[in-house]
Amino acid sequence: MSHYTISIDAMGGDYGPSVTVPAALTALKADSDLSIILVGDVVILKQQLQLNKVFTHDRLTLHATSQIVTMDEPPALALRNKKDSSMRVAINLVKEGLAEACVSAGNTGALMATARFVLKTLPGIDRPAISAMLPTMKEQTKVRVLDLGANVDSQPEYLFQFAVMGSVLSESVDNIKYPRVGLLNIGSEEIKGNEQVKKAAEMLKASKLNYIGYVEGDEIYQGIADVIVCDGFVGNVALKVTEGVAKLVSHYIKLAFTRNWFSKLSGLMALHVLKGLRKRLDPAHYNGASLIGLKGIVVKSHGSADAFAFSNAINEAVLEVKKNIPERIQEQVVVLLKEPDSDL
Amino acid sequence: MSHYTISIDAMGGDYGPSVTVPAALTALKADSDLSIILVGDVVILKQQLQLNKVFTHDRLTLHATSQIVTMDEPPALALRNKKDSSMRVAINLVKEGLAEACVSAGNTGALMATARFVLKTLPGIDRPAISAMLPTMKEQTKVRVLDLGANVDSQPEYLFQFAVMGSVLSESVDNIKYPRVGLLNIGSEEIKGNEQVKKAAEMLKASKLNYIGYVEGDEIYQGIADVIVCDGFVGNVALKVTEGVAKLVSHYIKLAFTRNWFSKLSGLMALHVLKGLRKRLDPAHYNGASLIGLKGIVVKSHGSADAFAFSNAINEAVLEVKKNIPERIQEQVVVLLKEPDSDL
Repeated sequence: MSHYTISIDAMGGDYGPSVTVPAALTALKADSDLSIILVGDVVILKQQLQLNKVFTHDRLTLHATSQIVTMDEPPALALRNKKDSSMRVAINLVKEGLAEACVSAGNTGALMATARFVLKTLPGIDRPAISAMLPTMKEQTKVRVLDLGANVDSQPEYLFQFAVMGSVLSESVDNIKYPRVGLLNIGSEEIKGNEQVKKAAEMLKASKLNYIGYVEGDEIYQGIADVIVCDGFVGNVALKVTEGVAKLVSHYIKLAFTRNWFSKLSGLMALHVLKGLRKRLDPAHYNGASLIGLKGIVVKSHGSADAFAFSNAINEAVLEVKKNIPERIQEQVVVLLKEPDSDL
Repeated sequence: MSHYTISIDAMGGDYGPSVTVPAALTALKADSDLSIILVGDVVILKQQLQLNKVFTHDRLTLHATSQIVTMDEPPALALRNKKDSSMRVAINLVKEGLAEACVSAGNTGALMATARFVLKTLPGIDRPAISAMLPTMKEQTKVRVLDLGANVDSQPEYLFQFAVMGSVLSESVDNIKYPRVGLLNIGSEEIKGNEQVKKAAEMLKASKLNYIGYVEGDEIYQGIADVIVCDGFVGNVALKVTEGVAKLVSHYIKLAFTRNWFSKLSGLMALHVLKGLRKRLDPAHYNGASLIGLKGIVVKSHGSADAFAFSNAINEAVLEVKKNIPERIQEQVVVLLKEPDSDL
């Protein structure tokens, strides 16, 4: 696809247009094939554009909406009462073919519920999932984890479908050949785990996927798998714990380097190194979780993303457009969800 | 209790007697009221004592056993076939009243299954749980998390019982008055979470516990709760992810400080600070997870614990003996598990 349009829920996220507008301008500047539709309160959006000294842009359109989905709004209420919200309309534009993908930093539950209602899931996929990349100890290797919170109490079939979708993303977006798929469990022994995980393991073993077996929580970061599959409750806890521990360590690093004059001095010396470290582990570089399994591309930015992080979420959406992710998942589902016997 | 005896599964863990024997000697030296029974292969134990230049000790007894439970042995097989294992006999000694508590670095699943079979659960407690302390951002505040892997698919009633037990441990062992109890969930909004968590929340709200509501994965480390309750699958993933992220960050710190001559120099300057940091976040200081809800005290050491870490697990057992934990849980269960209406 040589030209593509991304619709942006410009009112979503903790900071709304003050983040989404400059991020959109950055993305437009970097990619001359990209067009963007900013969806939201046009008065506020124009103010933001003026603040950024942009008065007209031939690849930027504003689309007026009258409602906003708040960050703590119950998904069912957002779905029922906010039909002219920036979130809903941004997704509608994808459904109507006016945009190839949508990006939002809004309320995750509402985004998932709305995307699922408007776009519908792909045939063969019961539940869409949230997928994102995490860093590993191997410098060039990241790992794709899903589901990160769209589904609780995932059935074995859902876990298997997550594996199929994760595998497609890993192959298409991350350029990994025959990606290694691990199943998150609480022990590497056959005997451990709950029933859903054990049954999903059997399905994965019988499939054509490159299934490498169970992985434990600490192994997520060891670069031993390209895709790790889990229930959304577990995945969301794992993701949040990761954020929490990173903050904890960074808090104690700061504390350690300011304890006395000597530690302050060595902190000053180490500043450059610590900044590099921070950049490497900065979640902003990994911003942009994919809502996959839908008939359309929707990317979720972290709610507290700044303009740099939000522009990375736009980049993720562009990449998925270029790689035609929904179509690829569709193809692989047909191949991989066949009963093993039906090959004969 | 002025004198107390701890039985040690001396063959358990990745390093067996080479860790358990020196750890026992350290603990004996530090506490003149402590007696220890080392359970295992007496020939090997004597060799280890000689290596540590100890030939007789009036508070140390060796108890001969002929079997070892391996680290990957299925719990059911260990229970059935290893009746003379160091693990089983160390627990038997508690049952028989010859020791007040037992410490093992062996196979967690086998330890839990054996402890439950031999000691039985306290009346009113359906499932024993594994509980351990994690560090938080508030320097003097730690958080007790349970269950860390004894139970998968925890019913709401189990989660409620975990809260009662965690509260008792926090009050008795950690000296926290009216400990704040949080329930691990994937969102702070009422609408999120799975059915078990939602029902457990209702039970906790109706109880006399100091229930503070849902906490998310990243909030574990913020010091906002003294006790955090979750299903064992979720808790085990959270614990392992914590280990994994800590290792990941430490890996990148090392890498960052050895990248070039300048970073090496600042690393040298920062060495002292980084060592202090490491000490603060070192899991060895937190070693010693409690198997609680049993008619007896059993403490699980990390399998890869060194002698220092293992001696901390012994200290945890001593503390639980001094505080009479099983009796206290029993009392609180009677008070807190009453139906709210039965107070009238």
